[in-house]
Amino acid sequence: MPALLLDRSLEPRLQQLIDQKTKPLGALGQLETLALQIGLIQQSTNPRLTNPHILVFAGDHGIAADGVSAYPAEVTYQMVINFIAGGAAINAFTRQSGLRLVVCDVGVRGTFEANTPEFVKFKVQPGTHNMRYQPAMSADDTEAAMDAGRLLVDGVRHRDCNIVGFGEMGIGNSSSAALLMHRLLKVPLNQCVGRGTGLTDDQLIHKLAVLTEVADTYAHLTDPMAILSAMGGFEIAAVVGGILCAAENGMVILIDGFIVTAALLVARALDPAVSDYCVFTHQSEEAGHRLMLDQLDAQPLLSLGLRLGEGTGCALAYPLVQAAVTMLTDMASFESAGVSTQLVTSYQ
Amino acid sequence: MPALLLDRSLEPRLQQLIDQKTKPLGALGQLETLALQIGLIQQSTNPRLTNPHILVFAGDHGIAADGVSAYPAEVTYQMVINFIAGGAAINAFTRQSGLRLVVCDVGVRGTFEANTPEFVKFKVQPGTHNMRYQPAMSADDTEAAMDAGRLLVDGVRHRDCNIVGFGEMGIGNSSSAALLMHRLLKVPLNQCVGRGTGLTDDQLIHKLAVLTEVADTYAHLTDPMAILSAMGGFEIAAVVGGILCAAENGMVILIDGFIVTAALLVARALDPAVSDYCVFTHQSEEAGHRLMLDQLDAQPLLSLGLRLGEGTGCALAYPLVQAAVTMLTDMASFESAGVSTQLVTSYQ
Repeated sequence: MPALLLDRSLEPRLQQLIDQKTKPLGALGQLETLALQIGLIQQSTNPRLTNPHILVFAGDHGIAADGVSAYPAEVTYQMVINFIAGGAAINAFTRQSGLRLVVCDVGVRGTFEANTPEFVKFKVQPGTHNMRYQPAMSADDTEAAMDAGRLLVDGVRHRDCNIVGFGEMGIGNSSSAALLMHRLLKVPLNQCVGRGTGLTDDQLIHKLAVLTEVADTYAHLTDPMAILSAMGGFEIAAVVGGILCAAENGMVILIDGFIVTAALLVARALDPAVSDYCVFTHQSEEAGHRLMLDQLDAQPLLSLGLRLGEGTGCALAYPLVQAAVTMLTDMASFESAGVSTQLVTSYQ
Repeated sequence: MPALLLDRSLEPRLQQLIDQKTKPLGALGQLETLALQIGLIQQSTNPRLTNPHILVFAGDHGIAADGVSAYPAEVTYQMVINFIAGGAAINAFTRQSGLRLVVCDVGVRGTFEANTPEFVKFKVQPGTHNMRYQPAMSADDTEAAMDAGRLLVDGVRHRDCNIVGFGEMGIGNSSSAALLMHRLLKVPLNQCVGRGTGLTDDQLIHKLAVLTEVADTYAHLTDPMAILSAMGGFEIAAVVGGILCAAENGMVILIDGFIVTAALLVARALDPAVSDYCVFTHQSEEAGHRLMLDQLDAQPLLSLGLRLGEGTGCALAYPLVQAAVTMLTDMASFESAGVSTQLVTSYQ
């Protein structure tokens, strides 16, 4: 069943509550817009964020062999080991903010020994095919990866989680994200391709040449699922499935950087209503992300020059999302604060 | 004794530690710069933030009688009552983030009954004179208000607090802040004057006319203390004193919006080293703030369209400051994560 477009009938009441808080009209800027959105998602004037999770999906990319990333593919595996050990940025930031982290191997090359509830093994394949020569994933494998995303979201939902952020790890996946952006937003490829984790000028030229070839190969595809299979990745497909499932279940969805936003482009091509549930946590330093956000008419909460992925933008922005809800639920109104009617009138 | 310019001899070691964390070089953007700054302030590769406080100073402004604010002066008093009752935005946000809040009446018109450790009575005068006709504060009263700021910072410092944010409440104080900016940064007055809590176009024109008159009256003053006395306010002077004391004691200082940044302009005119200790928490919606921050070469952490004051920007940005420290202290290095040397080399 598709996600529901937000029922906006509660909007006037929510806006009135926000306007009656003890502050000048509109003085909390983006937090006010966010409070309204979350109230509408939960259809409540008293929204609550419960058991927030970050889900990080990891997968390898065949195209990484062609020098489109500053790092060798093995780093995906090594970083998942680091996630499991609790040493990565996303571990540190989720610990700090009281978010639960679940990491899922959906397509990494290499076998993991770990067996903990915070690490889910759902390996569809050990990495994608090199999309330069054949579609990255079969249709069945794409569906399987999307199912992994859905399953994890269902799992945390049954833990009473109503807000979920998505992160990813996959050397080479900024290439997939750039291609998805190019095809789904019809933006020239050179405006979509960036330095990823740190390409030099020459390497960037090489990456664009390789990706131009890939884009030409699959230029005939128009179906979003076919485009995802051909040029996506397992972790991206998992995020697509996770976003769809979260929106269908009326959860608040935290969108991270360039890769996760590219996954959202696929999700909204499949189900336009998902965008209503998304909070854009940050504008990444990756070149194409600003343009992607503009096309989505999205106002990111942070712009700190991050380009790490892993869901770090979600974790860092989460306290701001909490603050928006806190404003709605914990701030006094002019009436409850006992500020005189005369002052209320003039203060507003 | 003046604040010490930061000893930067630890910088190469700190930068090396940041670069060895399991992430691409520079991938945490502004958080990396912030971690470096805090390491230098504390002269430690293992910095800690302890017992963080927000100090909010409140005072009234004689100029408010001349229609320079959208709100009557009585709102200052009413909002302090709201702070004491715990109903304002800054109460909600500090509760959420585990920050302690102390509110200080340094110049409000009206008497407060409350007697709690979180509310300090240090009223120098019940509001400033109307600076259109005489200097806002006498030299002695200016010093007394600065002392209030120093005393509060000393107080929280003895509670083992090593990071302090400053906030303010005072109807009319964006007029003082604009005039201080004009004089201390030598920026044309019309680029300093903004809508404050929400002036209409006509009211903004009126505000500029009134403040132009005030600026002309005190155009002969050049001493920062004389400028502060003539065109500042009690809450602004208290923040100036608080910033000076915090910097002298090597604390991390969180700078809020337009008014608090104007207080910083005075503090750095008195002691240029204070800037080294300041973290710029947000860019306010108030027109002049962007220009103020540019002149200070400051990169604010947030830009959410806030224009509330009260230290709300400090409280909202605090988790990001924590995250910067967390990166330095809680993230694995390539070595500790056991990522192979070959990968370290290529990953960097």
